Parts: sequence; structure tokens; C-alpha cells
Amino acid sequence: MTTGVLAGMRIIEGSAFVAAPLGGMTLAQMGADVIRFDQIGGGLDYHRWPVTDGGHSLFWAGLNKSKRSIQIDLRSDAGRELVGALVTAPGDDGGMFLTNFPARGWLDYARLRAERADLVMVALTGNFDGSSEVDYTVNPATGFPYVTGAGDSDDPVNSVLPAWDIALGNLAAAGLLAGERHRTRTGEGQLITASLSDVAFAMVGNLGRLGHAALGRDSGTVKDGNHLYGTFGTSFRTLDRRHVMVVGLTGRQWSALRDATGLIDRCAEIEQEAGVDLDTDTGRYVARERIAECLCPWFAQRTLDEVAEILDKRQVAWAPYQTFAELLGDRRLSSANSLFSPVEHPGVGTYPMPASPLDFSESGRLPARRAPLLGEHTDEILTEVLGLADHEIGTLYDNGVIAGPTA
Amino acid sequence: MTTGVLAGMRIIEGSAFVAAPLGGMTLAQMGADVIRFDQIGGGLDYHRWPVTDGGHSLFWAGLNKSKRSIQIDLRSDAGRELVGALVTAPGDDGGMFLTNFPARGWLDYARLRAERADLVMVALTGNFDGSSEVDYTVNPATGFPYVTGAGDSDDPVNSVLPAWDIALGNLAAAGLLAGERHRTRTGEGQLITASLSDVAFAMVGNLGRLGHAALGRDSGTVKDGNHLYGTFGTSFRTLDRRHVMVVGLTGRQWSALRDATGLIDRCAEIEQEAGVDLDTDTGRYVARERIAECLCPWFAQRTLDEVAEILDKRQVAWAPYQTFAELLGDRRLSSANSLFSPVEHPGVGTYPMPASPLDFSESGRLPARRAPLLGEHTDEILTEVLGLADHEIGTLYDNGVIAGPTA
Repeated sequence: MTTGVLAGMRIIEGSAFVAAPLGGMTLAQMGADVIRFDQIGGGLDYHRWPVTDGGHSLFWAGLNKSKRSIQIDLRSDAGRELVGALVTAPGDDGGMFLTNFPARGWLDYARLRAERADLVMVALTGNFDGSSEVDYTVNPATGFPYVTGAGDSDDPVNSVLPAWDIALGNLAAAGLLAGERHRTRTGEGQLITASLSDVAFAMVGNLGRLGHAALGRDSGTVKDGNHLYGTFGTSFRTLDRRHVMVVGLTGRQWSALRDATGLIDRCAEIEQEAGVDLDTDTGRYVARERIAECLCPWFAQRTLDEVAEILDKRQVAWAPYQTFAELLGDRRLSSANSLFSPVEHPGVGTYPMPASPLDFSESGRLPARRAPLLGEHTDEILTEVLGLADHEIGTLYDNGVIAGPTA
Repeated sequence: MTTGVLAGMRIIEGSAFVAAPLGGMTLAQMGADVIRFDQIGGGLDYHRWPVTDGGHSLFWAGLNKSKRSIQIDLRSDAGRELVGALVTAPGDDGGMFLTNFPARGWLDYARLRAERADLVMVALTGNFDGSSEVDYTVNPATGFPYVTGAGDSDDPVNSVLPAWDIALGNLAAAGLLAGERHRTRTGEGQLITASLSDVAFAMVGNLGRLGHAALGRDSGTVKDGNHLYGTFGTSFRTLDRRHVMVVGLTGRQWSALRDATGLIDRCAEIEQEAGVDLDTDTGRYVARERIAECLCPWFAQRTLDEVAEILDKRQVAWAPYQTFAELLGDRRLSSANSLFSPVEHPGVGTYPMPASPLDFSESGRLPARRAPLLGEHTDEILTEVLGLADHEIGTLYDNGVIAGPTA
């Protein structure tokens, strides 16, 4: 049985919410031994929605899969010393720390490095200056809410998906691996920092939207509904009142859509009216409303099944909109795909859990493994990583410095 | 001057659009030598919006920063051989290939590996079975469009931001580094695959939404406007008709908001009416509409400046909504933050460009470096990587197999 491409790597994680837990889980699902420590009773995200009727957080269960858990009283000096000892424990495969806790005081990098000179620490913050921020306050600043949603309102539409947290979490995993690579080659550790708003603002730049605004070419106030920016793509309603998205981004996609729907007969007319060339992105984008108007009856006169049959035959780029519940029945979540498997989470039940989206031809893909119970591995971690004797662990329990499994 | 934490690593990239180019750029901005090859005249994304009046793609310029570029006729056997030679060129720091082109035929992994046994190749696809998909067809399938936007419409709201592409791009960078680490330790190369829809669907699971639906607890059809899922947070309009987002996710954030706005005087009343405890996430979420109603006049009676002064003083988690143009004036894009610097892109002008959001205390953060012109490095790449002589390069030009810089 494979143990994953990162087998043997150990990372200590002090985290809450999405970005840092996701970064740790990304590495854990590739086989790293990721040890998340939490305040006894759970951190800030331990009850984050969605929750079950019994109060179990499916969010926490989702973002901490494949990790080990230790509960420590982080407000006590003894607890903080224990965390420091875990973070700086010797061994070539350890000495890595991923956190979104404030990297100061007892978690100051210089202070930790004094105990282990080659410590690789990834510290995630809200803003570049260390101040705090959450995805839902960063996204409003990016400009995207003012270009999201239907044009009949100029109210901003904030994101439900914490996209920046996700981007930062995956980037943190890459940053940690880059830092560990450098250490392997040079022996040098370092502090790696990244902020949520930096990731978001960099991406507004990367996608060209910021440059476009800087050049005075985009006010950023035009809402375009579900039209795909910069080319043709939009949503339609079928006869049976289902919603579908169709896309003509590449030339091949565009000609497939045009041919499948009979739109080809109207193209010359649209081109003449709009004064554009529909074989270019710009032409299709400029004429998007007119194209959509011509296509609308085609969808309105057909059921989703009829639409699907015709579009699939012509290899059109399209998709039906689905709810979370409908996604459960998607063929891409079936057993044909090794990504998902049904796993039991104690106290909750059995439901489909995803493994890493990365599959390695030689190292394999580890099956989905549930999140730990809080403190499930307290004893074994202290024994294995710090070499504590049973009576030492007993004393820590007696003094309320640590706690064991909590269902 | 620093050369970046990944200095000495060479990656060949065959890509288009967001995910693969972003993955390559993430590594390039950490110092890897990333060589993107393109069909002569540019690939499918060479004219992607936003574009300048002169037709330059700010999108392409944004997603290919810090790379080198070579133009090759990919339809010719000689051109394909050249790509194969680049991908499998010897050297400890080479032998890495990142692509979202179909990994079959001339780009089949087994075929390439025959030339270099330890090749690490990351192949990104649309779906797990290798079929194609774009962000704008994946997002409809995730369930998020049916819970995005205001509740007065049940039409789905698709994402303007290609969030899944971004997640996949960053994950691809982590996957490549994991594969390279394994090779360094064992000598073994491998094919690493990941798909856009797998990344998206895994994240629906990671965030707990899929499990919630599987347990029959979430129909996924309730639109909640800008309310923050699972706790309190929403948007308000100020006296001067600006929009702001406020968040009470953690206990500290909630009490800061409550105290700053005088809401504290109404809390007991709201708790009694709704039968909830506002000190819990669930209580705040259940009573969200009532809380928002109570807060609405407070914002409506104050200008943005007045709101900002009070909320900042109390350290409330909040943000004004900004357009792309307004983001340009955000203090976090100023010279106080080393993330952005003004860089000239030939034929376009000078505008703020982001470096890597990752900053390394010892290896440094490389300054933003513009994208190459298409084919800007054709000659030097063939000389340096393949050791071709001038006359050999000349013959390739003569035969139309390669092309040099195109502005």
C-alpha cells in the first residue's frame, strides 16, 4: 500500500478556518504527517457551519482530513512550551510549521528558530502588514462583486465560495515545499509569509483586470449576468425550466455551438448588425446579447435531455447547473473516479469524502481519510515526536495542559 | 541580488488559459526557469480579454510573467521533436513538464519518459477521465451558482472569477514540487494528474457543503444575498450610497461590531424574538435578517468616512466594496507593500504588476518581471538548453519550425 508522495514529512499546524487548514490538508493528503494542535475544546473554527443536528461541524471535518490532532491549553506557559517543542523537534523530516495564528510572542519566528535553526515556517496573515482579514472582507475590495450578477441591480454580489482562502491554502502548500526544498539543498530554514489580500490582489493583476483599469479601459462597474467575460458564453433556460451554461471560448467550442444550434444561419446577419467578426473573441463578446437572443428560443423549445443529447453529440462546451444535492448524483462523483469514497465520520455518519485532487502515477493517490477527533492523537504524538514517558504525559493531563479525544 | 528560492529549477510549460499558466508562473515567480512554448503566432489564450486598444492581451501578459518564451510550429514533426527534446533535456534541475495540452500522442507520458526515465510531468485536464471542461462549465456543476446572489431571483449566478482554475494552478505548483522532491530522494519520476472538476468538487466536499447535502440537510437552493453563510456578516449601504461588508465571524469580531454600532442594546430583544443565543454562530445565522434590519439605519445615517472611523477604532472586521479602478488606490497596493511595482510591458505601457504573494525571509521575494514577448527567448533557449549551434538554429528558422520575438 502506498504511503503517499510526501511520506516521512512532518508538519505542525496551528490554524483555524480555511486557508491554513487547507494548506495542511493538501500536504496531509499527499502523505505528510500533519499534526494540528488546538486549544482544548477546539479552536475558532470548531463549530463552523455547516453543522449537523448534533452540532458536529462538517466544515471542520472537511478541512482537517488525514491529519492527527492534539489538544493543548494554549493559554498556559506549559502548553505553549509544548507547542514550541513540537514545532522545533529534531529530525530531517520535521521542523516545519504552518500557521495563521499571529506569528509573534510565543509564536515569533526568531524565538522558535533559536530552538531549531533550520525551521521552515509558513505564516499566513490577512494583510501584508500582519493585520487581519477574512475572505468575505477581502473579496469586496477586489472589484469582483461589482461585476458579478445580473445587470438589473448595481448592488455588489459577494462570493459565497471563499475563493481567496482556497488560493492561499494551495499556495501555502507550494511555499512550504519550496522552503523545504531550499533547506534540503542548503541547510537553511526560513520564514515564509503570505497574506490573503495579497493573493487576491495579485490575482486581479494576473488576470489582467487591474492593468485594464490602470490603463483606464475598465470602470469595473458593468454587470454582465452570466456572460463569459471577453468572449461568448452564457446561461439559458430549457423547456423544462432547467438552467444550462454554454461556452464558445475557443474557436472549436464556438463552431460546435454554432453548428449544433443552427445559429450558423444567423451569424452573417449578427456580424453585419454588430459590425464584428464572430470568429474573434472580441466579436463574440461585443455581440453577446444578440447571440444570446438568437439562441434563447432553441433552448426554450427543448428539454434538458434533448439539449444534452444534441450538444454532447456535437461536443459543445456546456453544463447543466446543479445544486449541491444534484452534484451528489454527478457521474464524476461515482466510483468510476477514485477521488471520492464513502467514509464514516464518528458521530456524523457516512458520506462521500474527497481525497487529494492530485494523482501520482508512481506514488499513488491516498484514499480519503477522515478528520481526527479533537485530541485523538494527543498521547501518541507526545510519545512519538517528543519521546515523553507515560508518567510525563500523565502529569500534563493532571495539570490540564493537554486533553485526549473529544467526540 | 536574490535569484529566488527555486533558482536552478527548470520547467517546460505547454499551456493555455489560467490553470497551467498560473501554475508555471507561481514557480517562475519563486525563481524557477519556466519556459513556455507556444504555437507560432500564439496559442488559444494569446488574445484573451482584457485586451488593449492595440490588441495586446493583458490576460496573457498577466499570467506569463517571469517566464521565457519560445515559438515552435507544434503541427510539424520537427517542432514536436524539439518540444520533446526540451522536455527531456538532461540535467538534475530539468526534466519537468507542466501542461494542460492533451497528454497523448506526441505528448504521451510513456513516450516522453522513454527519452528521460525520471521525467516529472504534471498534466491538467478538465475532468478525471481526460475530457475537457472550463471553469465556466465546472462552476455551474458545483452548486455554488444556486446559492449566490440576492434571493429575489432563483436564477443561478455564475462566477466571474475563475476560482477553480486558480485553485488548480496553485495546486499544480505544489504537485510538481512534491514530485520533484520524490525524484530527488528516489530518482523516480512520475506523471501527476489533476482535473479542474476534481479540484472543484473536492472543495465542495472540503467545505462541508457536499456532506451536508448528503445528510439531507441542505437543498442548496436558498439564496442568501451577501449574508455570510453560517454566522453573521452582510452588506450595508451608507448615507453617501457606498456599500460596505461587515463580518461577525469570531466572537471578538461579533462583539466589536455589536459594541461599535450600539446593536448591543437590541441583542436581548433579538435573542428573545428569534429564540437564539447571539454568542453562537448558529444563533447569529438564524437571526441574520433581524440583525441586519437593526443595523441598517446605523449605516444609512452615516457616510463611509464616518463609518470607517468608528469601525476602525473598534477593530471591527469590515471593508468597503471597491471597483477594480478603486482597488488601484488601495493602500495595500502602494509602495509600502513589496508585492506590486510599476513595470513596463512593451507596446502596452507601465502599470502595477504583482510579484509572488509568497515572501521568503532568506531567499527573498523576486520583483515583478513582465511576461516575455512571444518567442522572445527562442534562440537562447535552443542554445542553452539543447546546445544547438547557430547554423542548426538557422535551419530551423528557414524551415519554419521556430520563430523569434513577436511584439
